[in-house]
Amino acid sequence: MSLKIYKKQLDVSYTFGVFPTIELLRKAPNLVKTILISSDARQHLGVKEIIDLCHEYKLNYDFGDRAIRKLAVKENTNVIGVFSKFTTKLETNSNHLLLFNPNDMGNVGTIIRTMAGFNMHNLAIIKPAVDIFDPKVVRSTMGALFEVNIEYFDNYTAYLSIHNTNMQYPFVLNGKQNLGKFTFTKPATLIFGNEGSGLDASFNDMPSSVTIQHSSKIDSLNLATSCSIALYEFNKS
Amino acid sequence: MSLKIYKKQLDVSYTFGVFPTIELLRKAPNLVKTILISSDARQHLGVKEIIDLCHEYKLNYDFGDRAIRKLAVKENTNVIGVFSKFTTKLETNSNHLLLFNPNDMGNVGTIIRTMAGFNMHNLAIIKPAVDIFDPKVVRSTMGALFEVNIEYFDNYTAYLSIHNTNMQYPFVLNGKQNLGKFTFTKPATLIFGNEGSGLDASFNDMPSSVTIQHSSKIDSLNLATSCSIALYEFNKS
Repeated sequence: MSLKIYKKQLDVSYTFGVFPTIELLRKAPNLVKTILISSDARQHLGVKEIIDLCHEYKLNYDFGDRAIRKLAVKENTNVIGVFSKFTTKLETNSNHLLLFNPNDMGNVGTIIRTMAGFNMHNLAIIKPAVDIFDPKVVRSTMGALFEVNIEYFDNYTAYLSIHNTNMQYPFVLNGKQNLGKFTFTKPATLIFGNEGSGLDASFNDMPSSVTIQHSSKIDSLNLATSCSIALYEFNKS
Repeated sequence: MSLKIYKKQLDVSYTFGVFPTIELLRKAPNLVKTILISSDARQHLGVKEIIDLCHEYKLNYDFGDRAIRKLAVKENTNVIGVFSKFTTKLETNSNHLLLFNPNDMGNVGTIIRTMAGFNMHNLAIIKPAVDIFDPKVVRSTMGALFEVNIEYFDNYTAYLSIHNTNMQYPFVLNGKQNLGKFTFTKPATLIFGNEGSGLDASFNDMPSSVTIQHSSKIDSLNLATSCSIALYEFNKS
């Protein structure tokens, strides 16, 4: 198999490092194409666990220092998991998180991780947006990428045309209700704007628009922070 | 003034870009040494606002393309604010957030931003830890660095020797009480471990230890996520 430095057009992506690769093997062994291991790491505890998992699932692994040096983004990468990209569809009549044009890879990865932690299993992303298979996103999800359905849409109308029975809750700075002070109607879609520009002003006037109250010392909360708090509160409700 | 690429030993730090520099000028004009502006950016709206603020506070600014190219971490940096580092002491008998050995700059910056948003104005950091004046941290705070008292301590004992009247709430994976299900005794110290290793196991057994309940699909929440949820809930209580 000839392996290329990651780009969006490839039909594979990579996990870099021991922990993300173990998560890949445990959660999605069917997606694994091969595992690359650096030759001087074969005695590491985590690497032994990876080799055991490869045996268990009858998967290939290779000691490939040159390939690792070529593909790895960071130095000191001991292990790379090569896996096939996949597509998933959102469940209908389930709760969704919807992100408009997210462009920070660490944010999106962290949001996916938090979703899995708070039982939110469907993520809609309105394009243009980050590539969820970029290894930086994969890494930030800490294995949660394989726990969440993720579907891209060209625009919000395309999303609504399929999922319009969900109650829509746009999160804005001056919403009509405050998080924690009302009860969500489910199934629900929690909607968040881009990191820099937020949501279009037209969302403010929706009766279901929501604000996370904060002091005037800051202009806004970070996107992943807002999503995390919303997911935490939604999961309690 | 001869300006050097940022390192910890310098007694100045930098804001890169228009928004962080405006926040610096508004919130801490007394710390500003000078503002560097790239010559082809003088017509930008944000840059005009910066120049107006410099006039208002009688501060120097310079068109210095070479200096900007030398200091900037990213391309396309139009503006750099040069400011003096400062030290602050934590308020006694106030609420505190305490981080053990945080090592991710983006996490710490985001946490400081969230603190300012949820009225938590004192941050204790146990060394070794990130340098809060690293421009990457400064950038992630989005101006909130100037709103929060931050003090480093050599170890937890040194912190406790001054602030032992605060009720101590360590956040752990298997705590004695669940966030949202009890009332905080204030003043309180919310304690979080390092990104990778968490808190020492000895904290688990404290009767005041706290868990943020999440599903078994993830091993843990991201550090900034956990802090954000705790700060949100603490601010409500």
